Amino acid sequence: MRNDLDDLMAARDLAALLLPVDEIYSPTLDYLVGPIAITGGLAIKPVGAEPTLFVNGMEVEEAAASGVTVYTLADMDWHTLRAEHASTDEAEVALWGRCLAHLGITLGKVGVYGTGTLHRYTALVDHFRATYPQYTLTGEMGRTLFDEAFLTKDDAALERIRRVAAGTNAVMQATWEYIASHILRDENLMRPDGMPLTIGDVRRFINKALLDYDLEDTGMIFAQGRDGAFPHSRGTDTEPLRAGVPIVFDLFPRERGGGYHHDMTRTWCIGHAPPEVEELYDTVMGAFDVALAQFSVGSPTHAMQTAVQDYFEARDHPTSRSNPGTAEGYVHSLGHGVGLEIHEKPLISHLSKDDTFTVGNVITIEPGLYYPSRAAGVRVEDTFYVTPDGTLQSLSMFTKALVLPVKDGHDNSQ
Amino acid sequence: MRNDLDDLMAARDLAALLLPVDEIYSPTLDYLVGPIAITGGLAIKPVGAEPTLFVNGMEVEEAAASGVTVYTLADMDWHTLRAEHASTDEAEVALWGRCLAHLGITLGKVGVYGTGTLHRYTALVDHFRATYPQYTLTGEMGRTLFDEAFLTKDDAALERIRRVAAGTNAVMQATWEYIASHILRDENLMRPDGMPLTIGDVRRFINKALLDYDLEDTGMIFAQGRDGAFPHSRGTDTEPLRAGVPIVFDLFPRERGGGYHHDMTRTWCIGHAPPEVEELYDTVMGAFDVALAQFSVGSPTHAMQTAVQDYFEARDHPTSRSNPGTAEGYVHSLGHGVGLEIHEKPLISHLSKDDTFTVGNVITIEPGLYYPSRAAGVRVEDTFYVTPDGTLQSLSMFTKALVLPVKDGHDNSQ
Repeated sequence: MRNDLDDLMAARDLAALLLPVDEIYSPTLDYLVGPIAITGGLAIKPVGAEPTLFVNGMEVEEAAASGVTVYTLADMDWHTLRAEHASTDEAEVALWGRCLAHLGITLGKVGVYGTGTLHRYTALVDHFRATYPQYTLTGEMGRTLFDEAFLTKDDAALERIRRVAAGTNAVMQATWEYIASHILRDENLMRPDGMPLTIGDVRRFINKALLDYDLEDTGMIFAQGRDGAFPHSRGTDTEPLRAGVPIVFDLFPRERGGGYHHDMTRTWCIGHAPPEVEELYDTVMGAFDVALAQFSVGSPTHAMQTAVQDYFEARDHPTSRSNPGTAEGYVHSLGHGVGLEIHEKPLISHLSKDDTFTVGNVITIEPGLYYPSRAAGVRVEDTFYVTPDGTLQSLSMFTKALVLPVKDGHDNSQ
Repeated sequence: MRNDLDDLMAARDLAALLLPVDEIYSPTLDYLVGPIAITGGLAIKPVGAEPTLFVNGMEVEEAAASGVTVYTLADMDWHTLRAEHASTDEAEVALWGRCLAHLGITLGKVGVYGTGTLHRYTALVDHFRATYPQYTLTGEMGRTLFDEAFLTKDDAALERIRRVAAGTNAVMQATWEYIASHILRDENLMRPDGMPLTIGDVRRFINKALLDYDLEDTGMIFAQGRDGAFPHSRGTDTEPLRAGVPIVFDLFPRERGGGYHHDMTRTWCIGHAPPEVEELYDTVMGAFDVALAQFSVGSPTHAMQTAVQDYFEARDHPTSRSNPGTAEGYVHSLGHGVGLEIHEKPLISHLSKDDTFTVGNVITIEPGLYYPSRAAGVRVEDTFYVTPDGTLQSLSMFTKALVLPVKDGHDNSQ
């Protein structure tokens, strides 16, 4: 939680967090100061103190809306710094030094966090280290400070998460109804203009529906047939929807402009499901139940994945444990934390030795089976909140029905 | 241009470009392999050779669509690497080493490029340097390799840019018509439900209209009155549109999912414009003409900004040259390159000493005047292509009219 930041900094002996602000949405900046529409400058959080923002005067109103203390670059005499240095980038390194000193941080370990352009910040970090030997500027890998803070959601985060979940479920419902409103003819769904409904049409509908809930897509999967047998294939926009072919629909939007995500997947067959798809589907739903039965607060996450792998392997499906690198069967992790980043800790993998389930987690559970050789993939995914009483509360209430019924346009007397 | 990459690498003595792939859209990755929907892995381009992708098997189909050579992590024996290392991150560093060696790059200078999480990659770069002393892994600041490559657009880039420009102009037109379709009553525009039209309503309309052209917003400004007097204020969604108040509408979307941008700004007054706004507007349009008259291929960009600053200062408007740090008057640069990044080189600033105009540039020209004290801002911006015959071709053809006429709902006989 956000309240844990000072403890997490102390555990790392960090005098300050330094977050350069780039033009890209930054989950760590959002976490530190709330959602904010700035495209440059710097945030610094000294240990034991609130963060401070240093921004271009053009963005001072947007920065001030966050409620934290804001200085303009002019307050920090930026134009003199800029004139004294050969490039904007060298001046920016000098600005980091000046802002740290301004907040009374004159030596010690400073952690650099944020999101940005790797080549630029690699060079800026090198240049800062050479210019300011009194600081130890460090990155972090493995389980980072923000990974740990993100692990459990406080009430403010949960409120945002529940709003995103409600919107995502509503868009799932709207998409189902949109598809169902079309007439089936010769295994295709027909648009009012007489052309077949394509995946591109559906994706455009979904993107617009998300906006009605102030959400934005971050790369949804709407993948039919063989595409759906590759877990991360997005699907082919030009392809018409076909009856009786499994469609993997994985929707993981976030608050518009950046923010909290919701992550849920349904597998749909339009009109009817062939028996072999039904069988895959029932097996995946069985795995879902195995996962839920395995859950308890404090237990290691790998035990849940292992139970699901046991279940699939007992039914002769290869897994990434029995056949590392396999592209057929159950080929991925069982789930992950969800928040400002789409993939957070804990990871539910047989390889994640240190992760346990904790009150306040928001996690996905998403078993699936994939057979490129049979042109079929099935995945079902809910996002869950781990409640204070230690139970899993699904935030993905939309139906898990496989068959999406449509009206058949054929004369059935034929 | 993309064809220049090998020369730009040679000038930097780079044996290879190494681009770690994160879940965030990466302009440099798009430039190297084209638009691609992968969320992890690695791209490497040896000098004098085409790039190669190393991706998770789940993303192999998406990676293969780029047309470049693709290896899966399983091909690189990832699961063994993962088992041999304490964390995924340490295994990833080992993967970088293995993939470089696989492509025959066994020593020398390797440039790290891309977009991602700063703390993680700072640590990975440190760890790589400690583990593989035979390489010199470097970032780059100032005018980077990709800054130079992005400077001039080739035919493939131009085709994408023109498509985005056409869509953005169409959305400007649709927005104008959407606003004009409302009836004015008591200085507000009325929605069919009898409530006043708000900035949030307009923003939602724009976001949906962008989707019709396969574009996505990246932080549009629709800022009225005092908000518009801060160049980067996005505008206040709850605010009803008001007649006779200047609105700065800066639209800079990109291809959906990441890609090329178009950048254009119009200032609108609904129904009528007060004389003091008209005067600011005419002055800004005069500055626009001064800028165009100053243009020639090969000339330094700072001369264009200086001419515009001369013009504004002669009319008693403060500028960031006459009053560094000023929040009133003409407070920003005159323009910038536009492409896969919204802000590219060349920069049109009096401080940019090394930038010149070149055939193949795609640049903005965007003079403005800002007076928070008078609750008014005005900016007009087109994006231009510098054609092979050395002229500026505007890609932002939509009208620059200040007044957006609406139907008045009052009985004028009163």
